[in-house]
Amino acid sequence: MPEGRRGAVRSEAARVAILEATAALFAERGYDHLSIEGIAARAGVGKQTVYRWWPGKSALIADCLLEGMLLPDRFAVPDTGDLRADLIAWLAGVEGVLDSPTGEGLYRSLIAAASENAEVAQRLRESLADPRLFAPRLRAARDSGEVRADLPVDEVSEALIGAIMLRALARTPRDPGLPERLVDLTLGPRPS
Amino acid sequence: MPEGRRGAVRSEAARVAILEATAALFAERGYDHLSIEGIAARAGVGKQTVYRWWPGKSALIADCLLEGMLLPDRFAVPDTGDLRADLIAWLAGVEGVLDSPTGEGLYRSLIAAASENAEVAQRLRESLADPRLFAPRLRAARDSGEVRADLPVDEVSEALIGAIMLRALARTPRDPGLPERLVDLTLGPRPS
Repeated sequence: MPEGRRGAVRSEAARVAILEATAALFAERGYDHLSIEGIAARAGVGKQTVYRWWPGKSALIADCLLEGMLLPDRFAVPDTGDLRADLIAWLAGVEGVLDSPTGEGLYRSLIAAASENAEVAQRLRESLADPRLFAPRLRAARDSGEVRADLPVDEVSEALIGAIMLRALARTPRDPGLPERLVDLTLGPRPS
Repeated sequence: MPEGRRGAVRSEAARVAILEATAALFAERGYDHLSIEGIAARAGVGKQTVYRWWPGKSALIADCLLEGMLLPDRFAVPDTGDLRADLIAWLAGVEGVLDSPTGEGLYRSLIAAASENAEVAQRLRESLADPRLFAPRLRAARDSGEVRADLPVDEVSEALIGAIMLRALARTPRDPGLPERLVDLTLGPRPS
């Protein structure tokens, strides 16, 4: 990557300033009114400095999101000891974020960035789309007999996250009963 | 829509010519090298005519895909009378398309278009993301006892399609055993 060599002494301070400017302007104005010019001005750098490191605003938003600057801790899975309740709460929390105009724009800009940019997709895969997000909880639940011993852990994660992603992408109206139905579907009937 | 009024006498011949040019150039050059200039030249219209009806190439690709110009009949669900086998074959077919560079680009451009454009998202929802895609087969299988009577039909569709979409977006390497594991997960254990 010749580009990488020239940009190797990429300033961490400038990088953080640009991401913080992006997060602040996003919160103030929303995604549609976010511009590279505005971000550069707020961060005190030239427009070309922004473009040297990011292809566009969707990639900037993706970096902010993945670094926890926009929705800190929103995507952590709670651990109350009740796997079903925790997964339902997590899915309901994600749906709650998506239900706000800001959250919906955020989420769709992350999808757009990932579809356009392999590096963003890789980072998405390492965070939100990582089967390991739920895997430790699911494995423990298999060991304790809370779910069946042959439950395919990665597929449960992909089905739950994928269903929510698909609904967000297709702008399917929110359905309060959905998280519980999805969890019951993938974990199997609740043991009596 | 004032824009709609001026464009109301939108020529169907020009629309089809533009979509056919898009499909042909996409097949020849791939998504990354597709340009509005090239499409307009091939279709024999001005660049502004293309931009009047489509915001960009992702929306053009989405229209081609949704009108069956790029992957005809690829997304029809087979009906052999064995629901599990049909769903597995369908998922494997979609994965096969995604496994080619052309198919992957196509699929990601559809996702990008839907994330940017509410109209494309609506059309996606009415076709690929429509819970009705599998619903008639799933309802018949519930009635015949092939799957449990309280299987949530829409959630099965969303989990299956969503999992595949998430994997494509995150560029997760193809896994030949995945379709069967996903179908077993969502339909429940095969009756003995």
